[in-house]
Order: sequence, then C-alpha cells, then structure tokens
Amino acid sequence: MSIAPLVSATSDFEAKVRALMPDDVFATVTASYLEEPRGRYAGTAGLLAKPRTTEQVATLVAAAHAAGVAVIPYGGGTGLVGGQIAEDGVPPLILSLERMTALRSMHAEEGVMVVEAGMILADVQSHARAEGLMFPLSLASEGSARVGGVLSTNAGGVNVLRYGNARDLCLGLEVVMPDGTIWNGLTRLRKNNTGYDLRHLMIGAEGTLGIITAACLRLHPEPASEGTAFMAVRDPRAALSLLAMTQKRMGGGVSAFELIHKQGLDFLSETLPDVRQPFAEKPEWMVLIDVGLAQGLNPASALEALFSEASEAGLVSDGVIAQSQSQRQQFWALRENIPEANRRIGSVSSHDISVPLSAIPAFIERGNQAIAQLGSFRVNCFGHVGDGNLHYNVFPVDGKSRADHEHQREDIKRTVHDLVHDMGGSVSAEHGVGRLKVADLERYSDPVKLTTMRAIKDALDPKGIMNPGAVLAR
Amino acid sequence: MSIAPLVSATSDFEAKVRALMPDDVFATVTASYLEEPRGRYAGTAGLLAKPRTTEQVATLVAAAHAAGVAVIPYGGGTGLVGGQIAEDGVPPLILSLERMTALRSMHAEEGVMVVEAGMILADVQSHARAEGLMFPLSLASEGSARVGGVLSTNAGGVNVLRYGNARDLCLGLEVVMPDGTIWNGLTRLRKNNTGYDLRHLMIGAEGTLGIITAACLRLHPEPASEGTAFMAVRDPRAALSLLAMTQKRMGGGVSAFELIHKQGLDFLSETLPDVRQPFAEKPEWMVLIDVGLAQGLNPASALEALFSEASEAGLVSDGVIAQSQSQRQQFWALRENIPEANRRIGSVSSHDISVPLSAIPAFIERGNQAIAQLGSFRVNCFGHVGDGNLHYNVFPVDGKSRADHEHQREDIKRTVHDLVHDMGGSVSAEHGVGRLKVADLERYSDPVKLTTMRAIKDALDPKGIMNPGAVLAR
Repeated sequence: MSIAPLVSATSDFEAKVRALMPDDVFATVTASYLEEPRGRYAGTAGLLAKPRTTEQVATLVAAAHAAGVAVIPYGGGTGLVGGQIAEDGVPPLILSLERMTALRSMHAEEGVMVVEAGMILADVQSHARAEGLMFPLSLASEGSARVGGVLSTNAGGVNVLRYGNARDLCLGLEVVMPDGTIWNGLTRLRKNNTGYDLRHLMIGAEGTLGIITAACLRLHPEPASEGTAFMAVRDPRAALSLLAMTQKRMGGGVSAFELIHKQGLDFLSETLPDVRQPFAEKPEWMVLIDVGLAQGLNPASALEALFSEASEAGLVSDGVIAQSQSQRQQFWALRENIPEANRRIGSVSSHDISVPLSAIPAFIERGNQAIAQLGSFRVNCFGHVGDGNLHYNVFPVDGKSRADHEHQREDIKRTVHDLVHDMGGSVSAEHGVGRLKVADLERYSDPVKLTTMRAIKDALDPKGIMNPGAVLAR
Repeated sequence: MSIAPLVSATSDFEAKVRALMPDDVFATVTASYLEEPRGRYAGTAGLLAKPRTTEQVATLVAAAHAAGVAVIPYGGGTGLVGGQIAEDGVPPLILSLERMTALRSMHAEEGVMVVEAGMILADVQSHARAEGLMFPLSLASEGSARVGGVLSTNAGGVNVLRYGNARDLCLGLEVVMPDGTIWNGLTRLRKNNTGYDLRHLMIGAEGTLGIITAACLRLHPEPASEGTAFMAVRDPRAALSLLAMTQKRMGGGVSAFELIHKQGLDFLSETLPDVRQPFAEKPEWMVLIDVGLAQGLNPASALEALFSEASEAGLVSDGVIAQSQSQRQQFWALRENIPEANRRIGSVSSHDISVPLSAIPAFIERGNQAIAQLGSFRVNCFGHVGDGNLHYNVFPVDGKSRADHEHQREDIKRTVHDLVHDMGGSVSAEHGVGRLKVADLERYSDPVKLTTMRAIKDALDPKGIMNPGAVLAR
C-alpha cells in the first residue's frame, strides 16, 4: 500500500480548523511540547490545539484526516520512548488533552470512575482516596502523567504484581478514531463479551490507532492493613523463591516485590546521601516487599513469620520490617530515589526489559558477563522482579562519563536486547515502543505479528496520520 | 467491500488437502459436530479434520484461504451461542482441535504453563494442581470445554471476581491466522509493551480472526485456607453492600460472590430434591460467598466476623458457614446444580447479561415488572453478582411448558435485552456472540465499534472464511 506524504498543519489547514471552533482552542507551540524527558528527540513545531471537549477533538481529527495532516496526541509528556514527539519535519497538529481533565462521574459503590483523558494520574489517585478507595497504578511520573498517555502506553509501575498493568484497570474507553468518528465504549461493565475487544487494542497502541479522550477506571478497596520490609537475599534466584513463598503465605496480598542491587544503594550513597540505608552493611541483593492484608492480620507479624521461614530455608540473611507508616514511606523513598540517583550518575544505556521469571537469574548473569566484555562499566539492575521486569542500566565507572562511552551505546543496547530476545523476553516491558524502539520491534517481533499490526493500522488509519512514525515506521 | 461466495469443502478441495497430510487426519463428520448444547442450530456437514500439529492446522487453513472454503474451528462443542456450528449450507472445513491436547511445558516456579488448544479445561486444572498451583477458571462445562474455545469466547465462570476472565489468565498465544501463517506469540511474560496487543484481539474473537492452537496460561498459588458461607440477604441492594463489606475486610481474598434467588431453590426442590438446602426456610435472596485467605487467618472465623458486622448493619438475616471441606463442596453443589434444575424445568428464554454493579437492583426490579406485563412467568435470576453478571432466565409457571410460550420467546428476549441496553449493560456477559446474538450486536453496539470490527475482520480475513456468520454477519 502506498501512502500519500503528510501535509503541513500550518497555513491552509490551520485556517480551516480555526474557523471550526473558538480561537482560544489554539495556542503557541512552546518548547515543552517539542521535548521529552530523556532529551533524545526534538519535535517539529506545528499547530497546537488544546480542545475542551471530545467533539472538538473529533472535529480536529476529522479535518486532519481529510487533509492528510499528522496528529500527535499529547498527554503529560512524560513518555520515555519519544512517542509524544514528531520529528520528521512536516509540521503536525499537536493535540494536547491537558484541558480535558474532568471527573465525569464517580461510582464509588461500584469501584468505578469515569475521567477525561487529560486528568493527571495523581489526581485520579486523589479522587479515589476521597471515596475510601484506591487507584493502584503508581509510577515515578504520576504527578505529570495523564490518563490518556498512561493508557496509550499501558503503563506499569510498582503494583502490577497485584493489580495489573494500566489495561487491567480500565473497563471502558471513549476514543476518537483516525477518521474523526467517536467510539463510545465507556462501559462500566466487568464482563462484556460482545465482539472484538477494541479497548485492549487501543490500550498500548500509543496513539497510532486513535486518541483516547475518556476512560472508565477500576478502583480497588484499600487493604485493611499494610506492611513493608526489606530483606537481604542471597541472589536473584533466592529472590524468586522468596516471592513464591510470600505469595503462598499472603493469599494474594503481595502488592509489590522489588529487587534492588547493591549498585543502586551505592549510587544513592554517592548522589543522595540523605536517603536512609536499611542495612549497616549493604547486601549484594535485597528485595522490598509490600503487603496489604485482610482484617485480623498484623502485617509486621506476617512479615516476621515470612522472614523466619525464609531464613530457615536459607533464602534471606537479614531483614528490617517497617514498624510505622512513616517508616514504610521511608523504605519506599529509597526505592523511588534510585531512578533519580541513576539520572545523577548518568547511564550509558538503559533497558526496560522483561524475561520469563525463571530466566531472571541467568539473564542477570549472562548480561553482566556480556557487558564486562564490552569494557569497564557499572550495572544497576533493579525493578519489578515479580513481573519479570528489570531496569537493566549500564553506567560508566567512577571517573568516566556517559559522553566517554557515547560510541558504545548502540553496541551495549544491542547486546542486552539480543540477550533478552534470546531468552524469550521483551525489549519493552513497560515504557512502550514510541519512536525509540521502532527498529527493535522490527528486529525482534514475530513477522506475522508485524504483518498483522500493519494490516490493522492500514485498515483503521489508511492515511497514516495518527502519531506517524511511532510503533510502526510510516 | 464485496466478498466472494464460499466454496464447498468437498470434492476438489478435499482431494487437494488430503494429498497434503496423512489420511487419518480426516474423519467422518458425526452428529456431535453438527449439534450444540441448546439444540438451536443444525450444522452443515463438510470435511472434518483433526490435525495433530500446528503446522497441519496452518496447511489446512492456507488451503482453505486459497480456495475460499469456510473454516469452522471446533473445540469442546460446549458453547451456548452457536459459535461452533455453520448452518449456512455450504459444506465447511470443520477443524477440530481435539487431538492437540499436549502440555507443551510447565513452569511451576513461574506460575505458567503452555498447553495446546485442545486440552480440556479440567485437565488444565489437574496439571496445575499437580504442581501445587491452581488454574482458577472454573465453569459448568469444564469437563468438556477446551482451552481454545475457552479463550476464543473469553469464558468467565465463578472466580472472575478474584482472578478475572479467561483473557486475564492468558499470557501468550499461538494462532494460525486466516491466511494460514502462524503467529508465534507464546510469550511467558507478565509485562510486554511491544506493539498492538494481538492476544487480546484474538481472545474473544470466537475464531473469526484465526485459530488459537496453543496458549501460555497463568497459574495462581492456592490460597493458604479457604472458607464458604451462605448468607440470606434482605435484597439485591443488600447483597452489593455485603460484597463491598466483604472485599474491604478480606483484602482481596473474595474468590466468588454468587447471588441466588428463592426461585432457584424452589427449582432444586422440585427437580433435584436430594440437593441439601442450607436454610430451613428458603430466603427470598441469598449469597454464596467463597474466600481464600492468607496464612494466620481462620476463614470460618473471618466469615463469622463478617456476618456479625453485616447483621448489625441490617444486611443479612441468616447465615451458615461451612465447617469442613466437604461442607464447602456441599454448598457449592447447590450453586452448581441450579443450571441443571433450570434445564429440567425448561426455560422460555435465558439471558446472559451484565449491568453496572449499582444498576443490579433496579435492573431486577424493572425486569420483573416488564416480564409480568408479558404474562405469567417464573423468573430465576442468579449469577456472579460481583461481576454484574446475571443469568436472568424466564420460565413457564407450573403446569405450562416452554412450548406453550414459544411464540413469546423473541418478545421476552427483546424486552430483557432492551432494558439491559437502556441501563448501560451488555447482552452477552460471558457466553459470547456466536451466531445467536449477531443481530443483537448489530442492534445494540456502538456503530463506530461495529465499523471498526468490520474493518479489522476485512483486513485480517479478506475472504471471510474464518467462522463465517459468527460475531459479524458475512
């Protein structure tokens, strides 16, 4: 199929759409819309629209569809793979959802809320808390990330183990399709087997199949009581055994299970010395365990009993259990500060990967060997071990900088990604494909999957206007 | 788009495919392949193939694709909406997965198993149990239903509240696409954001977009201890309040929460008098609660504490808590015998519907009023109230038979479905669309959803050979 070249969103097109809605829908493109957190992509300025209603989004997309203008959906701008940045040079329509932040309806008795796509994730959490409920999706950028982006990238975070990814917390969607029609799929239903699941197709499509304008989100009851512990584990294999033991004991109450390597603790000491370290002597490996339990259980006691059993089994050598809410927060602060410490050190190459759970120990071992063969580096491997999702990040040794290794970045990335693929893993566990991993997707994906994705893209967006260049090459 | 008429699977086509593989792949079409449990559809005999490998499935589908022959994927034959029966008169290729029953691999330490699509659901459960794990999908037909069908229809059952539908228990798929290519998506990953989620598109597509040949299934740890109770509730609204209270107390440990109406208990007395009734006097409404809890809790005590709180709140008037494993089974036997009692009574019209949780009381009230206006009937309303999924079944009064009301069936169905739709519900909560509800889907679906489904179907199966007439009219 041959696709017509994209048309500029300026002059003719701009005049046409300005005539269709109030002038203040449009705004000047400031630098923030052309940048992304890792500074890898520089966007092309075009026409910036900040619609207030789904109908305005639909009108804008219909016009872009008619004219062949690229549409770049823009949420909180926190994506880490360049999905929010068009850099191909043809001025696009940047369509920001930032004004569509309404709570459309709250159904606390159902554990459901309907929100517009521009609502910030932290605000979703607050609305839920106000009803004595929780929206469990939690990630570092939750103060800026918006619902539409979170769903479009099927975001993960620390509570996936218990509550699932973004897709598992969404019951229904409203989407403006690539031709400007509106799919009203805002169902509040838990069970609904009426045809193809378009919701799951749109979630994770990174804005290439339509623009999510509203979502029906699933809330959960707060656990009756919560507890947190650090435990020093012998090695990653012991961490997996401890995970199985924890899940067996806690009856589904394991909310998070995070693996942390000594390198992360060293980076914290180096860059953020005020962060309290849990152990006098840093262990090689440790896990952060968070549980939320039923009434009648004391989480600290349950974690102590777990520690005893794990200790007898030779899985853990040391442990600290939070004795208060503030201590829990302190424990979590350590985990949450690791990405900031990483930023301050400056990685040569970062990898958001997943492998089958049982392959984790071998992956870490083989990865470290392969990196060592490429030169002297420090590896900080940490992450959501219960999901098989590791952030495997490679740093220069002390005295060197990332600039010294710029020429090796591609080699390192390729080495890690080849290994991940070889072990049945994924080169994008939770961040998505965006523009950063389009070539990786082509390299590592099953060819039938790629053909099928392309067929779906061409069927729903025949002009290729929706977030062109993201996920699939245009 | 105009589609060529289907071609018969006999004579020419049969000769061609017989030349491609061992003769014993093919078998005589017996009656069982042309019938379905409710006896509503009579299939057209064609060519029956029982391949042993994915490659044979692929070869057969590729040949059908080239020739324009319809392919009817056949699993356990337990579907309730005619999805497994081609009745349009052109002899199809009936492709039964019954010989592909292998356990390809077990990864107990990951909570994962890879099975072929022909494995019977009860066998999946056994394999999991043998490893001290559980596959929580549980439904009446589990002794005959096969994995491919269970996934293709996104089956539900009694444990959806805690563990999700079939789609939530599947990590990866192997699918023969409509052109005979094989998509190898058998990943064991918990997190994988690499492009469009084809897995979720195939699950619930009822064989119209490809044939699932193998699946990677997610297993769960058995809860440390389990408990079951019947509680008599004031009304459906009280049942919902009790559900919220139970979830709040049990920290995610509620495995099932089933609503049962007195009518179901009366049907049991009438048709299966040996089934033990829990209460001396049958309550108007009751719930069956099943919990699986963490170590350190006694489920019977936890349920007693729940009953006390609920009693004080005026939600429940009576309760019995299982004191042993065999009593738990007895309690469940009552629930599981309700469909059999229904069959013996003989419904005029059955409805597998869902509505938003908070709409359940109003739906039951309005439904009963509407049915009463159509004549004298008995309504047995029961189901998975925690999922908003009710089986709302309409029966003749004593002394009348379903045949007496045959002429009213369509009216009754329409009345119930219109009401469901009006209340934001779904006319197919867990059974799927099949051939039975194609017109309902057209009537009640969002038009943009239908257009999008059609575009996807045409893109992936341009000749319309895959299970033609199911889900979408050909």
